[in-house]
Amino acid sequence: MLNRLLARMEELYPEMIELRRLLHAEPELSFEEVKTPTMIADYLERLGVEVKRGVGGRGVVGYIKGGKPGKTVALRADFDALPIMEETGLPFASKNPGVMHACGHDGHTATLLVVAKALMEIRAELPGTVVLIHQFAEELAPGGAIAMIEDGCLEGVDAIYGTHLWTPIPVGEIGYREGAIMAAADRFDVTILGRGGHGASPHETVDSIAVASAVVGQLQHIVSRNVDPLKSAVISVGSFQAGGAFNVIADQAELVGTVRTFDPDVQELLIKRIEEVIQGTCAAMGASYTYSYKKGYPAVINDAVETERFVSSAQAVHPAKDIVEIEPVMGGEDFAYYLQHVPGSFFFTGAGNEAKGLTYPHHHPKFDFDERAMVIAAKGLVSAALHFLQEAKAEQPVSGQDVLKKR
Amino acid sequence: MLNRLLARMEELYPEMIELRRLLHAEPELSFEEVKTPTMIADYLERLGVEVKRGVGGRGVVGYIKGGKPGKTVALRADFDALPIMEETGLPFASKNPGVMHACGHDGHTATLLVVAKALMEIRAELPGTVVLIHQFAEELAPGGAIAMIEDGCLEGVDAIYGTHLWTPIPVGEIGYREGAIMAAADRFDVTILGRGGHGASPHETVDSIAVASAVVGQLQHIVSRNVDPLKSAVISVGSFQAGGAFNVIADQAELVGTVRTFDPDVQELLIKRIEEVIQGTCAAMGASYTYSYKKGYPAVINDAVETERFVSSAQAVHPAKDIVEIEPVMGGEDFAYYLQHVPGSFFFTGAGNEAKGLTYPHHHPKFDFDERAMVIAAKGLVSAALHFLQEAKAEQPVSGQDVLKKR
Amino acid sequence: MLNRLLARMEELYPEMIELRRLLHAEPELSFEEVKTPTMIADYLERLGVEVKRGVGGRGVVGYIKGGKPGKTVALRADFDALPIMEETGLPFASKNPGVMHACGHDGHTATLLVVAKALMEIRAELPGTVVLIHQFAEELAPGGAIAMIEDGCLEGVDAIYGTHLWTPIPVGEIGYREGAIMAAADRFDVTILGRGGHGASPHETVDSIAVASAVVGQLQHIVSRNVDPLKSAVISVGSFQAGGAFNVIADQAELVGTVRTFDPDVQELLIKRIEEVIQGTCAAMGASYTYSYKKGYPAVINDAVETERFVSSAQAVHPAKDIVEIEPVMGGEDFAYYLQHVPGSFFFTGAGNEAKGLTYPHHHPKFDFDERAMVIAAKGLVSAALHFLQEAKAEQPVSGQDVLKKR
Amino acid sequence: MLNRLLARMEELYPEMIELRRLLHAEPELSFEEVKTPTMIADYLERLGVEVKRGVGGRGVVGYIKGGKPGKTVALRADFDALPIMEETGLPFASKNPGVMHACGHDGHTATLLVVAKALMEIRAELPGTVVLIHQFAEELAPGGAIAMIEDGCLEGVDAIYGTHLWTPIPVGEIGYREGAIMAAADRFDVTILGRGGHGASPHETVDSIAVASAVVGQLQHIVSRNVDPLKSAVISVGSFQAGGAFNVIADQAELVGTVRTFDPDVQELLIKRIEEVIQGTCAAMGASYTYSYKKGYPAVINDAVETERFVSSAQAVHPAKDIVEIEPVMGGEDFAYYLQHVPGSFFFTGAGNEAKGLTYPHHHPKFDFDERAMVIAAKGLVSAALHFLQEAKAEQPVSGQDVLKKR
Repeated sequence: MLNRLLARMEELYPEMIELRRLLHAEPELSFEEVKTPTMIADYLERLGVEVKRGVGGRGVVGYIKGGKPGKTVALRADFDALPIMEETGLPFASKNPGVMHACGHDGHTATLLVVAKALMEIRAELPGTVVLIHQFAEELAPGGAIAMIEDGCLEGVDAIYGTHLWTPIPVGEIGYREGAIMAAADRFDVTILGRGGHGASPHETVDSIAVASAVVGQLQHIVSRNVDPLKSAVISVGSFQAGGAFNVIADQAELVGTVRTFDPDVQELLIKRIEEVIQGTCAAMGASYTYSYKKGYPAVINDAVETERFVSSAQAVHPAKDIVEIEPVMGGEDFAYYLQHVPGSFFFTGAGNEAKGLTYPHHHPKFDFDERAMVIAAKGLVSAALHFLQEAKAEQPVSGQDVLKKR
Repeated sequence: MLNRLLARMEELYPEMIELRRLLHAEPELSFEEVKTPTMIADYLERLGVEVKRGVGGRGVVGYIKGGKPGKTVALRADFDALPIMEETGLPFASKNPGVMHACGHDGHTATLLVVAKALMEIRAELPGTVVLIHQFAEELAPGGAIAMIEDGCLEGVDAIYGTHLWTPIPVGEIGYREGAIMAAADRFDVTILGRGGHGASPHETVDSIAVASAVVGQLQHIVSRNVDPLKSAVISVGSFQAGGAFNVIADQAELVGTVRTFDPDVQELLIKRIEEVIQGTCAAMGASYTYSYKKGYPAVINDAVETERFVSSAQAVHPAKDIVEIEPVMGGEDFAYYLQHVPGSFFFTGAGNEAKGLTYPHHHPKFDFDERAMVIAAKGLVSAALHFLQEAKAEQPVSGQDVLKKR
Repeated sequence: MLNRLLARMEELYPEMIELRRLLHAEPELSFEEVKTPTMIADYLERLGVEVKRGVGGRGVVGYIKGGKPGKTVALRADFDALPIMEETGLPFASKNPGVMHACGHDGHTATLLVVAKALMEIRAELPGTVVLIHQFAEELAPGGAIAMIEDGCLEGVDAIYGTHLWTPIPVGEIGYREGAIMAAADRFDVTILGRGGHGASPHETVDSIAVASAVVGQLQHIVSRNVDPLKSAVISVGSFQAGGAFNVIADQAELVGTVRTFDPDVQELLIKRIEEVIQGTCAAMGASYTYSYKKGYPAVINDAVETERFVSSAQAVHPAKDIVEIEPVMGGEDFAYYLQHVPGSFFFTGAGNEAKGLTYPHHHPKFDFDERAMVIAAKGLVSAALHFLQEAKAEQPVSGQDVLKKR
Repeated sequence: MLNRLLARMEELYPEMIELRRLLHAEPELSFEEVKTPTMIADYLERLGVEVKRGVGGRGVVGYIKGGKPGKTVALRADFDALPIMEETGLPFASKNPGVMHACGHDGHTATLLVVAKALMEIRAELPGTVVLIHQFAEELAPGGAIAMIEDGCLEGVDAIYGTHLWTPIPVGEIGYREGAIMAAADRFDVTILGRGGHGASPHETVDSIAVASAVVGQLQHIVSRNVDPLKSAVISVGSFQAGGAFNVIADQAELVGTVRTFDPDVQELLIKRIEEVIQGTCAAMGASYTYSYKKGYPAVINDAVETERFVSSAQAVHPAKDIVEIEPVMGGEDFAYYLQHVPGSFFFTGAGNEAKGLTYPHHHPKFDFDERAMVIAAKGLVSAALHFLQEAKAEQPVSGQDVLKKR
């Protein structure tokens, strides 16, 4: 059964390309997706897949119930695009000016659609159910995952897999990691409230630029002094805006920044320490402040058992040397939320190709990926799903809820 | 003669008001003055004053040659306005939206015009010459003074006086000071050139916000550690602009600030030390930079002899208790340039009136002054000028050039 | 053969205790060891072990050549003590005031001596050679390992194992880790050279305290901005000494600190960045400096194959749940040098016991450990050594040099 | 009368030298003066001066009541020495090892003794009373002035003059200044209380060196941002002591520093702001602290009327060009306390002589001064005192208290 599926992935590669390019030409922004989910749902229904539309708002969920009893495994692909003006010059470049599939979600979607097609062909033999989660709005917090989960997309699901096409990794390789594979990516906003005045009379003011600069300096101590050196943490101030006239002391300064962590304890420590630094520095210098901290997606924490399962299933269909353990990526992903509910594993499918000049970073106006990566991603997903259902069959059949309780 | 002049100042107060309000209603920006100098020149010519137009570009110079031989004394008034949207609601408020006489130059001009009128009445007895310098563009460096001087407005002039109507001082008082009365007011622009990147990967970047913040902190050491504590110096960063996205490390940060000093040695020290701080801090953190320092007007340094002369002449026409020595003002004035060529004294004529609500600071959209201050200013100017000419007559008559050489 | 050895470890536990207490009572400082190596060498010779004395100066190396052909495996124990005044009140406490076995090296030595005894009993069956490396001066850089290696202690050795009794881990457990298990621990010394003077006249000085304080602040940016957040690094300034009189500006300030890293690239980055920070900050503030950086022991990098071998051998003699993967320890160990020459693995043998109050940290005047840990360490060492020799026999017999080349 | 006194100063120069050298050879530390006050009192009594011994502890006060009625003027000289090992090699160098007249107080005393001698000679004609205040312990806070004032040395005194021989000014010149002539010189002590620990584990500590360094940096903002740029202020940290071992994070750091101000409002501002900076910075970084601020002598504030009187009297006996207005000196003097009770003026008598190599700064082991300065100081004091008494006689005779009230 697996071999048949793998062969189909190769055969259906041209369809993947076609689908991907169609999607690429008509990108839609997060929370504004209309055509894309309709196209997905229509495609799946044409295959005979049972489809729910509007899941969590704009998501699409397909259910492929196998001919044999078994567990339920979900595969997820996200389908939103970014507010970027495409500069690739590709024949299938975006027709929506200022909107672009610059992160590969077009590839994710095309891959999963073709996986669905192949699975439908062998449905009778399938020992369990495959749930296809086509998610909207991954690029923009709060993301679509939470809403889709609340709307039931994980009901009865025993495990979940997902992947990201990834140009920093050369096409042909797959990157996996047990535990934290992507960081929690948060945002903080600080306003330092001083008291403005003439640049010639600092003593009659509270110089918000001096205060905010001291805050930036003091924030560095958090990572260097307060975080366990064996743990990862980043605090970056990305924006510092204050004042305007050269001879006027600014009454307020705005700082906006990001925090990246893998460990929730470190995250909580930073939330607290950042405010202490701001508060103390303001007190030292006579200023006041506002501070807000918005948690973004939590860290993507891959389940140990499912990651091991994914690795062994991937090694069965790819050369073992191409299945590589990678360092965690400091970026964020709302796949994290699915993993808070069911065990699973998220992996990176190499999609870069230096020889073909496919080396632009994600979110770049010239971003493109090696489409061959879709076949590799598809094989990874389908072999993991099948592996899970077959191994589950070998064990005592139980409901997803029970599985959850046992872990 | 002096008494007659003083009496005329009182009698001509209504005309001062009328002139001032006319000027106030039609303000013109620095280096864009057209109607104002024409009105001034026409008025003076109607009085019979010998007038040069277009001095240094847009300035007007009037010459009142007395009936008796003697020295030459100059009186200066500036006439440009500011790019401010007036919010006073006065009946004579600006008719030019976004342009406003928010610094009292309308009053300076009205005062000097009426002084001219009174002086013309007693011209026959006048022992020497009074030069009326109506200057354009005081508010915007490089200012009009340099151009007018280069165009000859100080030729043959032995001494010069000028005043600023000043709301921080209550109407009725006159503020004087020997030596530095207004600061050198300079500007610096710094760009910190780092290397941008993802907020999650600071190690692949040079964080320009971190560098610029460190520069702001280090700049504080210059005043606290490098400047003689007995001397005055201010370094204020008025603008700090960097980055935009919360999760992107900014590749560059722009700092703009002002330096205020009275002593040229301190000024030179600061020019040098600011760059050393930027250079060293950038070197410490792997950034590069651009730095430009633009000297504004130099410090206004009142001549000791002329200031003493002004004080004794002012005490002759005002209650002695109202002639007060003041602390220097950290702001700048291009009257400074006249004083680099001829001895003289610049004084502040109180123009605030709390009872009447005339307390808004200069350059404020609701700025207004007590018009009574014009009479006081006029008396101060006229008595100083007469005093100078009469005392000069008592001494051996010499040309202005000789006087200059002797000092 | 292994079972016999393991049983002997239990039987010889009393002798371990006796030996450990003898050693504990007569501690000797690093590079001053005289009695301890003599006692060790005498003991080994009495067993019939071939002994080299004075290896690298004060080390002792024993050779147990098995009755059967095979490879060569080394086991290492260190035997120096610390300049600490013991406060345990134990009956076998140090008789040398101010010198104490406060790190467990007495236990290491006793363990290895008894391992030697047991191995000699089964020598005839031993398929290869066991080298016993009794090392002096582990506590004080440059340590004894380098000298012993230069003096040939690793000649012909194919692999090496060692352990540290470790009170932060409860007795019964063994901690292992592939790759970096202990950090590189370095030292830097900085002198900031300013120009002293009267506290009332900072402008005539270069305030070394202000400069050194700025350096400390800027150093924080290295870990927070320049080091990959996925990698570990510590820069700590442990000593800041400057000035004396309250009203005199100090002409120089002395900073002394430590750097901890696991990755040599990070270490090199820090060496360079620390100097850049000092240099740039001094340039910004008119000071000069001296900087010296002394690398301590490098990171202890456990070989992947030998660590896996150790784990499987340990799991064969201990409950699997007690063989735990641990986080790296930021402290240093000159076992690192052996691992630069031959593959091997260093592990931590739990030696804490809260119930018995054995919780004092290493180097504490009340430090003591659960002696039972010696049996566990002995079993760990002996099973790893035997495992290695037996598995090597199974492969094609080759010389140590060849093995090295192959890795 | 004045001329006679001035002539006597010249004639008595050899005696001044003799007295000064005697005093120089037997210096006594502040609060330990025994022989010096005895010698002074004996000398004065031999002259017939009415003497009070032990005033305020160790002070000597002499009263020269003139033959004519009038006011009362005080002249003050201090007589303590410093804990410095003399290195001048002078024939009359200190016989007390480690104690030295390195500040010129020997000269002050010799001068005032000889002034007393001359005044006694013209006592019959003297229109009022001269009080000779020989003060102990000027070098060491709280100083002798407070105690002598509390013990009545200023009773009935209408005005006071004093001088300091001053090598930074060349002999022949006298430096005066109205208002603040010497600064308030205070001391602060700060302990930053962190939490020590291993240098490899900063996250388990509060790094007191990092906190104290941040405090030093933040303190710079006070002078640069919080003090009126037209006013003087200095905050210098003279001592920073923390930690010891390179690999141990210091649990506490000690900062000791000085504050110099002329304006009591600025002084109070600094006392408050320094603590705010410490408190806020500690709060930002999780540390606590202790802070103590000890006011030293207040600023020496010369009375305007008495300074003008001194200047005109000095100009009568010295070339006018040698009576120069000087910038304030940032050092402290407890002459300040006398001026808080009665009007007066403190001046500097030039005592340096580059040609003779007399250029060492005060408090230097090789310090010496041009003895000729004593004659100039004597003339300055005696002419000021006579001037005061004669002018007072010309006015309506009133008690000192009344005079005080009028000012």
